[in-house]
Amino acid sequence: MITLPYQNVVLKNGFLYDKQMLNENVTIHAVYNRFYDTGRVSAFRCDWKEGQPKKPHVFWDSDVAKWIEGAAYILHKKKDPDLEVKIEEIIDEIEKNQCADGYFNSHFITCAPEKRFTNRDCHELYCAGHLMEAAVAYYEATGKDRFLKLMEKYVDCIEKAFVTEKTAKFETPGHQEIELALVRMYRATGKLRYLKLAKFFLDRRGFDPDIPILKNTQSHLPVREQKEAVGHCVRACYMYSAMADLALETNDRALYETCKAVFNDITTKKMYITGGIGSTRMLETFTIDYDLINDKAYAETCAAIALMFFAHRMLRFENDAVYADLIERILYNGMISGLSLDGKSFFYENPLEINLNNYKRFLSPEHSERFAITQRVEVFSCSCCPPNLNRVLASLGNYIYGYEGNTIYVNQFAGSEASVGNMKIVQKTDFPKSGKITLSTENVSTLCIRIPSWCEEYTVSAPYTVRNGYAVIEKPEKEITVDFKIVPLLIESNPEIYANNGKAAVCCGPFVCAGEAVDNIENLHSLFIDKNFEAYPSYDDALCGYRVTVRAYRKKPSQALYAKYSEAWEAFDLKLIPYAAFANRGESNMCVWFGVR
Amino acid sequence: MITLPYQNVVLKNGFLYDKQMLNENVTIHAVYNRFYDTGRVSAFRCDWKEGQPKKPHVFWDSDVAKWIEGAAYILHKKKDPDLEVKIEEIIDEIEKNQCADGYFNSHFITCAPEKRFTNRDCHELYCAGHLMEAAVAYYEATGKDRFLKLMEKYVDCIEKAFVTEKTAKFETPGHQEIELALVRMYRATGKLRYLKLAKFFLDRRGFDPDIPILKNTQSHLPVREQKEAVGHCVRACYMYSAMADLALETNDRALYETCKAVFNDITTKKMYITGGIGSTRMLETFTIDYDLINDKAYAETCAAIALMFFAHRMLRFENDAVYADLIERILYNGMISGLSLDGKSFFYENPLEINLNNYKRFLSPEHSERFAITQRVEVFSCSCCPPNLNRVLASLGNYIYGYEGNTIYVNQFAGSEASVGNMKIVQKTDFPKSGKITLSTENVSTLCIRIPSWCEEYTVSAPYTVRNGYAVIEKPEKEITVDFKIVPLLIESNPEIYANNGKAAVCCGPFVCAGEAVDNIENLHSLFIDKNFEAYPSYDDALCGYRVTVRAYRKKPSQALYAKYSEAWEAFDLKLIPYAAFANRGESNMCVWFGVR
Repeated sequence: MITLPYQNVVLKNGFLYDKQMLNENVTIHAVYNRFYDTGRVSAFRCDWKEGQPKKPHVFWDSDVAKWIEGAAYILHKKKDPDLEVKIEEIIDEIEKNQCADGYFNSHFITCAPEKRFTNRDCHELYCAGHLMEAAVAYYEATGKDRFLKLMEKYVDCIEKAFVTEKTAKFETPGHQEIELALVRMYRATGKLRYLKLAKFFLDRRGFDPDIPILKNTQSHLPVREQKEAVGHCVRACYMYSAMADLALETNDRALYETCKAVFNDITTKKMYITGGIGSTRMLETFTIDYDLINDKAYAETCAAIALMFFAHRMLRFENDAVYADLIERILYNGMISGLSLDGKSFFYENPLEINLNNYKRFLSPEHSERFAITQRVEVFSCSCCPPNLNRVLASLGNYIYGYEGNTIYVNQFAGSEASVGNMKIVQKTDFPKSGKITLSTENVSTLCIRIPSWCEEYTVSAPYTVRNGYAVIEKPEKEITVDFKIVPLLIESNPEIYANNGKAAVCCGPFVCAGEAVDNIENLHSLFIDKNFEAYPSYDDALCGYRVTVRAYRKKPSQALYAKYSEAWEAFDLKLIPYAAFANRGESNMCVWFGVR
Repeated sequence: MITLPYQNVVLKNGFLYDKQMLNENVTIHAVYNRFYDTGRVSAFRCDWKEGQPKKPHVFWDSDVAKWIEGAAYILHKKKDPDLEVKIEEIIDEIEKNQCADGYFNSHFITCAPEKRFTNRDCHELYCAGHLMEAAVAYYEATGKDRFLKLMEKYVDCIEKAFVTEKTAKFETPGHQEIELALVRMYRATGKLRYLKLAKFFLDRRGFDPDIPILKNTQSHLPVREQKEAVGHCVRACYMYSAMADLALETNDRALYETCKAVFNDITTKKMYITGGIGSTRMLETFTIDYDLINDKAYAETCAAIALMFFAHRMLRFENDAVYADLIERILYNGMISGLSLDGKSFFYENPLEINLNNYKRFLSPEHSERFAITQRVEVFSCSCCPPNLNRVLASLGNYIYGYEGNTIYVNQFAGSEASVGNMKIVQKTDFPKSGKITLSTENVSTLCIRIPSWCEEYTVSAPYTVRNGYAVIEKPEKEITVDFKIVPLLIESNPEIYANNGKAAVCCGPFVCAGEAVDNIENLHSLFIDKNFEAYPSYDDALCGYRVTVRAYRKKPSQALYAKYSEAWEAFDLKLIPYAAFANRGESNMCVWFGVR
């Protein structure tokens, strides 16, 4: 299918709309202010001098670029002179400080001009890619092409350094991003050169001269041979997204098969139930199959976003609900957990368990193992995630619909309107508060409605067949109603997952649930869910999802350290909240996976 | 009670006898050979020169001293000219190289004579303590007092440096050991000065000038206020042993109460089921209450030994079987696991779980978390544990009996004979292969037989009352028979122990059991023991303990990463071996705590 871009879709109400509004009203400003305070904005002036504070960091350009991209999506929807001025001021600085040959990187121009394109790990091409994405977004949102032209000049410079004259001291990006950005540049301008440059970077990968920890940057094999997900998760999924883009644009079946293999590898062996990926902060990598430790989960917000980008591309190849299901899983759980309910603070890592004892075990912090922070913060030194949320939330419309000829696909459920060509669709629902959805269409010959993978019981108001996870309705009446029954489910994981040994998680509709000590007891791991699952859900607007009370048992406290095994349990009402809402009510133990008895 | 020293006890057969024979025949020689090869023996020549290999390490003297102590215990039992020559050669070197003022430390004499007693962390007093223990043992075993005299001279030197002239640059030992050694010196020589010096070191503790990580070396408080076990486990338990010694010798009730509090703290909150202690290799410390992680257990062999020393002292205060129970737990599990079945190789750390995936998770070793080695080795750079096993195994007789007036206490079960004064006791049993024990006594008015804490059913052939865990038989007939029924038990841990959440371990008599992949399946954590416990034990001479087959279930393998919870189990015969015998049949996953259903 062709997924409908955000420009064609207006969100009206519901969870995704609320998060988009939070971003427009709070998060986009919160992130700008923090970037302003930390010197990320002024870095574009390229006037930092040795000895001054706030030395421009190698990846700061990318932070601001993602923020611009997010702000641009907002500008498409509504005039906002304040946002527009902020963006224009940054573009002014880029224009003023861009090198004659098109090069732009605030860190290298300011701190080490002689070192440009000499260190593969310095994120130059990554920053360049994000600037290009921002330029395309700003151009598409406002029609203003100044930024895009500057970036076209930068592409020329990069092409020269890496392809024509080969003056760069490395051959492929240390952190992928530019590949998918070049595909966007190609789509925005129609210039095939950009697509070819994207292909060049992808094809060269695996043929680089020796570089350390090859697997971490997915440089260990030619991309067509990379059927297993390895290394840094964000780099990986940005690359897989670019591979899928390239496969689509060039009709490269082999590359598509690789994408499919790696997608399956991630989603059947290496993904948290929240859609988070990455089991260790050590290099922020995928590890081995089924290694999904909870309290040390890395599960970076950006990695969840990157996986969603990848799934979104795969959906264009295959009209299979599995991809839209994953996007839903990420949107409602592993991505949005990165943002506090008030829209102001962020997680980089999104663990599936907080055990405060982990932070107290050791005699002194320097001897401690490293665990994720337990409360979201307004900014962190590596602040890639906050502006990534800005741009994704501002462009949520991208994920709702797809089409092919006169067929419309409903991929996500959200009060919304969309149109493409002469086709129109209006979706009325307060999903996920209820599973009832009314779809009104015009000029649509086939309507395909995703049946969520979590839904075991549903009704459709018209005759339908099920194909690849979609309810397919031919020649739909003007108004179609579907009703997905939302009930809590007890979910187990593959027995190979060590960390979830004998445990289960509760899900409710699109939400994964979590228990927090603040609603229960400190010792969450002593709670066991009744295997004859009994659960009572209620929607909580403040927490943006379902609270679920589950019949459970508690091992009776004991004095003895070791004693003969006994079945001494007492009943306990386990109170769960949406996973993404954890850590919004103070520091607390938290747990997704509970024992079952 | 007064515990009967090894000189009064002869082991005849059974588990402890077998391990003692293994030590005499294999381990004592294996350790000497490794110490010879690594330069630890030649270091006593004090002729190492810069640029040469095998530079004497600050703690090498203690390694060799513990070996001498073990060899001395063997010499008491039988002539062994080879062992005796080896010891005499080392004493020759000590005599030759000892400084005029009595100082001896092969590292400092050779490498940095000007730095003696300047660095609290350099184990000088620790080495001195072990040399003193060796000297006392050699004197008591052979009657030869040359070594003892040399060490008396060394005590003079230490007393001068730390008490009289205060030339030392620190006040208390960084690694405790000398305190309990000085008590032994006092007991061997009757010189009260030595006891006073032990008291001095204990009393000064907590009043030192600022030193980093105070808790790690138990220097954060005066010893009488240290009611919680903290810091480095071996240092802690050597210190608690010395405190108990001092409390006994000086009838210091307050100090005894402190010992009792800290003993309870360890055994009710901070001890593995194997008797191992220390939950992290980070500084090798106790951590917080109930923090008993299995795969990263530190549980150093020396720490288990040190805890046994402490329990052994506590038994002298209180005729309570709880202490002898703990000694049994350590002897059969957390200590002896440090020695391979062939007596030649060793563990420093004794984890309660091996998950080989832990070693494969990361892209490169330098980014890996540190886990214990999975196979015993013949020597390691910090080789404190091997000679500690030498000296404990050679003096196992220390732990079997106690007496008070005409009362005999049977603390451990082992084919053996003992006498003290005109009292005699002969214990006939093949314990732990069977629980049947026949005790013949002469001139004993009261016979107290420990009822093991694991025993739920037993018979005694004479009338008895139970007191503090002992079956007390007044005026015993010539021959008393007890029969402790040895059956497998399913044991759970306190629900506060995170790592054992919903799990149970199997014990059989004095043995804790473990499962190894080699007898079962790789994925041990997918096995769940039937809560209606059914188990079949059989004694295995080669593994020195019981094999136990347990009715269990296995979660059926699955393709899905996440799926609706199901009770899809298949029956599985879980095969267990004695914990201490793990890692003797190749590298394998291993697990003590299993899920229960």
